[in-house]
Amino acid sequence: MPFSHLRTVRLADTDAAGVVFFARTLALCHEAYEESLAAAGLDLNDFLGRADIIVPISRSEADYKRPLRVGDKLRISVTPSPLSGNAFAVTYEIMKLGPVEKLSARVRTEHVCTSLSKRERTALPPALAAWVQAG
Amino acid sequence: MPFSHLRTVRLADTDAAGVVFFARTLALCHEAYEESLAAAGLDLNDFLGRADIIVPISRSEADYKRPLRVGDKLRISVTPSPLSGNAFAVTYEIMKLGPVEKLSARVRTEHVCTSLSKRERTALPPALAAWVQAG
Amino acid sequence: MPFSHLRTVRLADTDAAGVVFFARTLALCHEAYEESLAAAGLDLNDFLGRADIIVPISRSEADYKRPLRVGDKLRISVTPSPLSGNAFAVTYEIMKLGPVEKLSARVRTEHVCTSLSKRERTALPPALAAWVQAG
Amino acid sequence: MPFSHLRTVRLADTDAAGVVFFARTLALCHEAYEESLAAAGLDLNDFLGRADIIVPISRSEADYKRPLRVGDKLRISVTPSPLSGNAFAVTYEIMKLGPVEKLSARVRTEHVCTSLSKRERTALPPALAAWVQAG
Repeated sequence: MPFSHLRTVRLADTDAAGVVFFARTLALCHEAYEESLAAAGLDLNDFLGRADIIVPISRSEADYKRPLRVGDKLRISVTPSPLSGNAFAVTYEIMKLGPVEKLSARVRTEHVCTSLSKRERTALPPALAAWVQAG
Repeated sequence: MPFSHLRTVRLADTDAAGVVFFARTLALCHEAYEESLAAAGLDLNDFLGRADIIVPISRSEADYKRPLRVGDKLRISVTPSPLSGNAFAVTYEIMKLGPVEKLSARVRTEHVCTSLSKRERTALPPALAAWVQAG
Repeated sequence: MPFSHLRTVRLADTDAAGVVFFARTLALCHEAYEESLAAAGLDLNDFLGRADIIVPISRSEADYKRPLRVGDKLRISVTPSPLSGNAFAVTYEIMKLGPVEKLSARVRTEHVCTSLSKRERTALPPALAAWVQAG
Repeated sequence: MPFSHLRTVRLADTDAAGVVFFARTLALCHEAYEESLAAAGLDLNDFLGRADIIVPISRSEADYKRPLRVGDKLRISVTPSPLSGNAFAVTYEIMKLGPVEKLSARVRTEHVCTSLSKRERTALPPALAAWVQAG
């Protein structure tokens, strides 16, 4: 079973079309990613440049299937998979909860571990590599 | 005891200073307001113009006491109080959780119930008035 | 020459890694899309459900090449292309301006014209179809 | 004449009520502040912790007078004023442009210059003090 994150759609997530703004969908997935890392004991702050390592997103893809509205209850699954020794992908499914669960969006991000000092790709830290493998 | 909402600070809440962007602090409080309404059985969608009623925010004030960082755990309290028959205020305290809880911000919003068709202030719907009184 | 939109990176676009949050990159492109529609005399409000028509984004893809920081000056090009009688794609290039222009991101969105009353795909309104063709 | 910043309301600024989300109003004012600093030759990055100095916002107040919609053209004026040797306020007026200009919001922020190493208030850097005085 993949890790999943529960989330309610907030007014700030929506736009004047009455639904979640498409780019916010990616932010919701990133929250689920952050939550999944935290659940594995990883601290996102370690990958924001505090150490020599950053793990920026190099690519995103999203298919928007069904609009989401204020108050909708979501379950966002998080499934990492390795791409190489210094990169990984994460796929997300955003399910709208209710009597019948419905797929709202499918998202995929790619992340590349980078050394700030060497300005090149570098191996994932062991704990992050373990998180990817466990996915 | 006021209603309170638990929230973790997300990367999308922060800015390049490494802390929550000041305007996002108000969005965090609005989430807590939405959650408090939902807990009382109220649907925010009813106040977004679907019916004749909107309840826009007419004023906000915020005192930012301590910066918040990615991963910080927050408890946001929500305390409504009546201003008149067609307006109310909500005060929020954002506490940063930890061995010692610390006040991060104190926020206050004012909300005015408005009839779209009459283009003037109107009485709060009974369920919303009850939520304000219960605060 | 494709339409292009000039934009400065703002603090609110960035995150605690010191750079533009990946999902905000898509929002920057959407601004450029809005600006391109406006330059062609089209009003985005007409596609938000005020009439029977909405034109939601069904898919997005983004390749993030170089990070962007507060104050960076950007030129975002907007190139629409038809996918069918009721759908189109838009490709965007975000160039970071400077002594040497550098590609920061390449983004693509797909948009599907939908009738709210019929709950199915419908032909693009003539003015929007003309904007796509002119791309 | 105070500095002013021209801005068009974007879809990402709005929420499901069809208007600019109240907290985004403060972000619009911060953009105008950034633009005013840049026009005076100041680089916001210098106040984000790169040097020993940060200038966080300690308080905000906003009065929301008229709702703003996608495509609305705005002029945001920026008027700084000193509070002390290490603090200043900025007042903003957001005018909605049109045949008759209308005040949409009035906002005020307070900023406190702080030394990261000393963890206490410190004097404004001369260039920033000059910007405040010129306001």
